[in-house]
Amino acid sequence: MNNPFFENNGPFVISDIIDDLDLINIDNYKSDLIYDVKELGSAQKNELTFFHSKKYSLIAADTKASYCLTLEGLKNYLPKGCKKIIVNNVLLAISQITSKFYPEAINDNFDVTVKKINDFNFKNKIKYGFNVLIGDNVKIGKNCSIGHNSIIEKNVVIGSNCSIGSNTIIRNTIIEDNVNILDGCVIGKKGFGFLPNNKKNLRYPHIGIVIIGENSEIGCGSTIDRGSMSNTIIGKNTFLDNQVHIAHNNKIGNNCIIAGQVGMAGSSTIGNNVMIGGQAGISGHLKVGNNVQVGGGSGVIKDIPHNTKVMGYPSKDLRKFLKDNK
Amino acid sequence: MNNPFFENNGPFVISDIIDDLDLINIDNYKSDLIYDVKELGSAQKNELTFFHSKKYSLIAADTKASYCLTLEGLKNYLPKGCKKIIVNNVLLAISQITSKFYPEAINDNFDVTVKKINDFNFKNKIKYGFNVLIGDNVKIGKNCSIGHNSIIEKNVVIGSNCSIGSNTIIRNTIIEDNVNILDGCVIGKKGFGFLPNNKKNLRYPHIGIVIIGENSEIGCGSTIDRGSMSNTIIGKNTFLDNQVHIAHNNKIGNNCIIAGQVGMAGSSTIGNNVMIGGQAGISGHLKVGNNVQVGGGSGVIKDIPHNTKVMGYPSKDLRKFLKDNK
Amino acid sequence: MNNPFFENNGPFVISDIIDDLDLINIDNYKSDLIYDVKELGSAQKNELTFFHSKKYSLIAADTKASYCLTLEGLKNYLPKGCKKIIVNNVLLAISQITSKFYPEAINDNFDVTVKKINDFNFKNKIKYGFNVLIGDNVKIGKNCSIGHNSIIEKNVVIGSNCSIGSNTIIRNTIIEDNVNILDGCVIGKKGFGFLPNNKKNLRYPHIGIVIIGENSEIGCGSTIDRGSMSNTIIGKNTFLDNQVHIAHNNKIGNNCIIAGQVGMAGSSTIGNNVMIGGQAGISGHLKVGNNVQVGGGSGVIKDIPHNTKVMGYPSKDLRKFLKDNK
Repeated sequence: MNNPFFENNGPFVISDIIDDLDLINIDNYKSDLIYDVKELGSAQKNELTFFHSKKYSLIAADTKASYCLTLEGLKNYLPKGCKKIIVNNVLLAISQITSKFYPEAINDNFDVTVKKINDFNFKNKIKYGFNVLIGDNVKIGKNCSIGHNSIIEKNVVIGSNCSIGSNTIIRNTIIEDNVNILDGCVIGKKGFGFLPNNKKNLRYPHIGIVIIGENSEIGCGSTIDRGSMSNTIIGKNTFLDNQVHIAHNNKIGNNCIIAGQVGMAGSSTIGNNVMIGGQAGISGHLKVGNNVQVGGGSGVIKDIPHNTKVMGYPSKDLRKFLKDNK
Repeated sequence: MNNPFFENNGPFVISDIIDDLDLINIDNYKSDLIYDVKELGSAQKNELTFFHSKKYSLIAADTKASYCLTLEGLKNYLPKGCKKIIVNNVLLAISQITSKFYPEAINDNFDVTVKKINDFNFKNKIKYGFNVLIGDNVKIGKNCSIGHNSIIEKNVVIGSNCSIGSNTIIRNTIIEDNVNILDGCVIGKKGFGFLPNNKKNLRYPHIGIVIIGENSEIGCGSTIDRGSMSNTIIGKNTFLDNQVHIAHNNKIGNNCIIAGQVGMAGSSTIGNNVMIGGQAGISGHLKVGNNVQVGGGSGVIKDIPHNTKVMGYPSKDLRKFLKDNK
Repeated sequence: MNNPFFENNGPFVISDIIDDLDLINIDNYKSDLIYDVKELGSAQKNELTFFHSKKYSLIAADTKASYCLTLEGLKNYLPKGCKKIIVNNVLLAISQITSKFYPEAINDNFDVTVKKINDFNFKNKIKYGFNVLIGDNVKIGKNCSIGHNSIIEKNVVIGSNCSIGSNTIIRNTIIEDNVNILDGCVIGKKGFGFLPNNKKNLRYPHIGIVIIGENSEIGCGSTIDRGSMSNTIIGKNTFLDNQVHIAHNNKIGNNCIIAGQVGMAGSSTIGNNVMIGGQAGISGHLKVGNNVQVGGGSGVIKDIPHNTKVMGYPSKDLRKFLKDNK
């Protein structure tokens, strides 16, 4: 699938890519064309991926990418058919290459393509308030409602029977049917990901998007960031309360209930039918199983198996928490 | 008092209401007219209420409602004069009936009645910024100020000498004199209350309102949800800092100080002269006494008596917290 | 330096100032002119300062202020050349005097001087969206971008190559070059500081400003309050994630990384190269050293030395936290 939101400036010749990184082309890679950059698990032939940590070695072993940026010490995990490019800093290198393919995904300047909604042909199809702005190529289904001062940036797709509140900003997002997004949200901005660097941090491009499943609801003042390489996903029939923050690359299942002021750091996966109490925090890169209940105020810093109730900071089994705090 | 914000479509005949619930009318209730749905404590003659948990049995015993939805195991707590309607799921049934009376209270689509403030006669009475929108039947006192892009939806009442910031949205709310509401708030949207249901949660109507007492202040980016059956109340001279979230049905007393990023789950009661430190969370259905101090970051999960200082997660006596954490 | 944002109504004669406080002028201070009110450390000749707590006695001993409000029990810490004015409530008195000098710094009513950006000469210099409002005497550098519905109030200074998002409000703030402020922020409103008083709290004026250093980034929905007497400072190349709250008078160093939903109570100082995990809270009046790492969800309630990693609530050494929670 082509990226629906960011134009791909590729393909680029692999030797040029290597030159850009100021590397010596020791393997003498030449004129292969690279069409895209993707994660280990999704990259295909003629695409480039990256592998920077041993914990992804199982996925690395199966990658279908033609080329992979990696470290000297990791290269043997990769399959033979995948050509290795050894670098000192994998994340820095992939960031530079991704920026070459998708230069527009680095900054989130406002969408200059938006126009007043009255200039479009939505009049008979949807209800809308004052001062609604719509970008190029936005698709909105039947029977939707968009509140005052809201901004739907270019290429956003909104299903049918959706209600978007007032003062809400949506970009780089696909919204399925029957979704309610309340007032004052910001959905689809780039994640808080960058390479720390003295005097001037290096932003890396966020080419992932946000997908919000059908029948879901997003509370007032919530922020959902788009992914860096993969997408940020809110499942079907999942309800978020006010002031929730979902960082980049998180994947939340179906039928979840996420109470007010919950925060999720990046790249975690939440199962189905999960309930998270108010102000709880979920650290990054975790797996939370199905039917899990997380008590309000908890701090989750390790994986949680299916069908478990936890509470505390750090979170532990709910019964243990209650016993320890009698 | 008639609900000032939601039109009551009643009265309805009780036998029709029972039919709508797909119940067998075993008591053969016939043509009594039901004029409203209310909580146990406030319902009057010719009104319908609900009783779903033993912890409300004392209030139930005194209800003046003519009809009450309840469970088989709870019906004997109700007075003889109150006619019982036995259901399997009280909250589901009351939600359906309330929706019949107040269909507009389920969703928070933007107010289509708003117009630009210049179309009203407020010019000589209040100061206002650009792009201010005002709904039908809004009342605003003397000497008020409303910032840019703010939206005051239909029927909202604002007292005298109030200052409303910019980018703020107010609906279903009564604001007394000398209140400051700062920028970027959303006041009066429906609470995060619904009946979880696989594939498609059932939203229940929120027919409560928000009342903000005189001399109070609400910080930037705060959200205060309206009540489901009862009201959400902010007392007089109570100050909220930025990014505070007050969920539905909470009742906060006078002279309280609530610091930044505090969150309150629903239906708790906070006394007078209470101080709550930054990022503290107050669970639902609790009673916090007068003159209580809650330390920053605390998680309050049980009632707190008057004149107490607590801290911790879960919160405990402040001296104990300090001793335990030496 | 003159206050760039609030007009100084002084000078005032010291005997008038004393009269206003309903004090008896026991030292018979007469016609000395007072030009400004400042903190102990920054006040100069012909300026008035205040000293209300023994913990500032070292700074008090060196103050260059001509006059100082203080308590009977503290007056001997002050140098001989500084004339003492003894009051019962120092903060109340300084608040009243500051209000006399800077009456506009008490309330944050919307800026009535703003006009649509099209009325200015920024067209060829910056990119801007719909409905952007700009106050009197705003300065904006080259190559900036300002999103839809954003409001830049009077006297704000924005450097070159800055990007301001949509729905953002900026007042009383100086922004250096290459700064990104994302959507839905409120920067520069008065801090949550007032003198609690039954029935009607007394707001004190906030004459400090916000300064955001070059190359920094402020995430969506964040709030940064201006200082009361001193300034709120975000260092250079410091990145804040979404929904962060920085209260008044905080000073954050360079190259810091502050994750989502972090909250800082007032008047703390954070060193350089500090990382603060999501949802952590920093209490007021603390010093956090350089190169400190604070784990997500932590509650920091005491100073943290340089080069330390902490986690927990209250926060402790990270290794101890991990050991205690095995």
